[in-house]
Amino acid sequence: MDLRGKTLSASGFHAPERGRIDVLDDVLFDISDDGIITAVHRHGDPNYRTIREARDLAGQIVTLPKGTYILPGFVDLHVHAPQYPQLGAALDQPLETWLTQYTFPLEARYQDLAFAKRAYSLLVEDLLAGGTTTALYFATIHQEATRALADICLEKGQRALIGKIAMDNPDECPEDYRDASPEAALEGTRDFIDYLRAHPDNADGRVLPVVTPRFIPSCTDATLEGLGEIVRRCGCHVQTHCSESDWAHAYALKRYGKTDTEMLDHFGLLTRKTVLAHANFLTDDDMDLVKAREAAVAHCPLSNAYFANAVFPLKAALDKGMHVGLGTDISGGPSASMLENARSAVLVSRMLDSGTDPKLPAGERSANTGSQIDFRDAFYIATTGGGIALDLPIGRLEPGFKFDAVAIDTRADKGTIRLWDEFDTGEAILQKIVYTASRANVSSVWIGGAKLR
Amino acid sequence: MDLRGKTLSASGFHAPERGRIDVLDDVLFDISDDGIITAVHRHGDPNYRTIREARDLAGQIVTLPKGTYILPGFVDLHVHAPQYPQLGAALDQPLETWLTQYTFPLEARYQDLAFAKRAYSLLVEDLLAGGTTTALYFATIHQEATRALADICLEKGQRALIGKIAMDNPDECPEDYRDASPEAALEGTRDFIDYLRAHPDNADGRVLPVVTPRFIPSCTDATLEGLGEIVRRCGCHVQTHCSESDWAHAYALKRYGKTDTEMLDHFGLLTRKTVLAHANFLTDDDMDLVKAREAAVAHCPLSNAYFANAVFPLKAALDKGMHVGLGTDISGGPSASMLENARSAVLVSRMLDSGTDPKLPAGERSANTGSQIDFRDAFYIATTGGGIALDLPIGRLEPGFKFDAVAIDTRADKGTIRLWDEFDTGEAILQKIVYTASRANVSSVWIGGAKLR
Ligand SMILES: [Zn+2]
Ligand SMILES: [Zn+2]
Repeated sequence: MDLRGKTLSASGFHAPERGRIDVLDDVLFDISDDGIITAVHRHGDPNYRTIREARDLAGQIVTLPKGTYILPGFVDLHVHAPQYPQLGAALDQPLETWLTQYTFPLEARYQDLAFAKRAYSLLVEDLLAGGTTTALYFATIHQEATRALADICLEKGQRALIGKIAMDNPDECPEDYRDASPEAALEGTRDFIDYLRAHPDNADGRVLPVVTPRFIPSCTDATLEGLGEIVRRCGCHVQTHCSESDWAHAYALKRYGKTDTEMLDHFGLLTRKTVLAHANFLTDDDMDLVKAREAAVAHCPLSNAYFANAVFPLKAALDKGMHVGLGTDISGGPSASMLENARSAVLVSRMLDSGTDPKLPAGERSANTGSQIDFRDAFYIATTGGGIALDLPIGRLEPGFKFDAVAIDTRADKGTIRLWDEFDTGEAILQKIVYTASRANVSSVWIGGAKLR
Repeated sequence: MDLRGKTLSASGFHAPERGRIDVLDDVLFDISDDGIITAVHRHGDPNYRTIREARDLAGQIVTLPKGTYILPGFVDLHVHAPQYPQLGAALDQPLETWLTQYTFPLEARYQDLAFAKRAYSLLVEDLLAGGTTTALYFATIHQEATRALADICLEKGQRALIGKIAMDNPDECPEDYRDASPEAALEGTRDFIDYLRAHPDNADGRVLPVVTPRFIPSCTDATLEGLGEIVRRCGCHVQTHCSESDWAHAYALKRYGKTDTEMLDHFGLLTRKTVLAHANFLTDDDMDLVKAREAAVAHCPLSNAYFANAVFPLKAALDKGMHVGLGTDISGGPSASMLENARSAVLVSRMLDSGTDPKLPAGERSANTGSQIDFRDAFYIATTGGGIALDLPIGRLEPGFKFDAVAIDTRADKGTIRLWDEFDTGEAILQKIVYTASRANVSSVWIGGAKLR
């Protein structure tokens, strides 16, 4: 049911800050006509009963069934929208083959607008069904297809940030899939920003443009400089890949004698609204710089195991106070599920923590003891952390935040979570949701209070 | 639809041997009255058309809808049945706390037969719904509850191998949850074997008893010797934990001056029908011995990340020709899904292969380069490998094998897999199933040709 102008009576969870799960036990969420949470009334509040009666009399209350829990919608900080058709494909290929034989040819197909519309529609529908209420999308170099992705998000109701990719370096991009020149790359970026800002269905800015250099190797200096200039003028979000692999990290050092992070900063691309995908190989100085600029990292635990060959030190980054959110990296990671990625974030953190080699004595297996996170941090980056990274009022269930939320029905047919009344209470329920729930348990999805599923 | 005495027309996949996926494109499976595949007729076979017409005339053909694929049912080689209520719980706890504060008290509750029946019923239903057609279960020390688990499997149709746990070492077992003496442990084991062998509903031996020392530390020598004696006499399956953690591996060395594996062999517990859970810390000599005895390893990739602190060298074991299957280790691993565990097996193998520490140069990050497996090996251990480990005619879709199978509906409502006609053919479809399918995609489950869901 549409919740704009209504009051939702429900139980649920969110992470108001790192390390703390707020157990929302039988609360009332007042939601404004424009989909913002205006108040959260807790069962123990002195005026709870009076308020409940008043809302009830006004016929304003919508009640979630028992066994169903409300969570903030998931914020996926790294999605290659055009790669959805190859989700779960070609993962037995080495990176070079994966890119040149599979990924670039697939992305090049989005020249075909009909194909783009079909593929993007299915992607947006499927992400919504999985509970991803906000996605930060890399599109392709194609203006028309990228506009189609924006139209589809506007039409289907998803909150989205979308970038037309800039990639024009002839040395590192395929001849049949790159911007023709720096001018073309910059003009394409500007055009897409203008398109979204003038879009008649986007008055509330639910879909935002993102300046999107694919990564430093794929861009000429002229393009990187020009994109920095665009960011200065438009104040847009920025997304790119940063120090994802040994090769990528070494590339910038060779081309500039400086790191990816330093060069992004040099070009004016490291801002409060920048999201760096992966960032596995950031140096300590890079981390300081990212933190100083209040830029964010999109941690992609599954993808890293396939293409980065190392684990991003998530706990260290969070402990340092860096902004970090979670990304699926469709299709470098094989799962579109933010829940599966959240639990994978725990998994890979434990392997960074313990090391992996059984032939080494326990004491020598890892130089990173203390790197493990728990489900609280995983849930935090999938929700709160994503909202902070994007500097948007999403990811928490608090007054002033958009009512972007999912309902997890723990009794759903085909679901994969079992709760036991005698064991499961409080945040243990959230732990089970993070570890065992799947798409079939996502029974409702709201964005800005509007019910989409 | 019940397929006993019928012919199934379908497409699907199985792994007749390691490294080879057999793409079953529009084939006919003839299934006998007692649920065994008697013939597989391929579309290209010279007599395919004649056979198809004959079966058709006899009204014998059942056709799977387009977009649905048949796979062998999954064989889960390591399940702690009583721990299902804590699946996805307490994973932020260290092992010692997890065992003493959560796991042992939970297992002790199965003294209560009503609780046991309720919990075991839900477990068996949920595993079947996820496509686990065969499970190798650790139960508890309780005779009545363990019999109830057997009854439930018989009633619900699952193929199962079940062990009443033997654990009597006062130094390593809680006072309120252990066998009272070696005699009690052995008598309990014998009684349960007798119960199952005489069970009126088990004439075909679909549910088998398993000699189950929890692990060496929890058993006295008298019990280990006595269990070896029972195995010699009854020829039963054996399951235990072997060299799972640094602590467990060191324990046997300290108590005996020999490894877990050597001592299991010494006690007569390392046989063709033995399944060793985890086995992360096997020495090279242990591996030789396991191979020589044709015993098997239950690889539990998720659980290992939580409680073993190292990755089992799966590829090395498979290359060596050892028997290996896949286990969820409910609840040491947080997922009951064999698909999720299969893809996790790929994931952890890649982290063993590459190492995890981004601060180390790529060349120094891992001493195990070449350890990564792909989806073919993951699928193999989840199906074929499990059947070989148990020495049962299951896990493949070949004449002489039981028709234990699942149907994966790639178009299922709430499903998580998308196929694209222009991209996905042959074994690429199986790769997508392994990486992205979930319980909602499991549309039918057959065991011995009987349709259970
Ligand atoms: Zn990416
Ligand atoms: Zn176990």
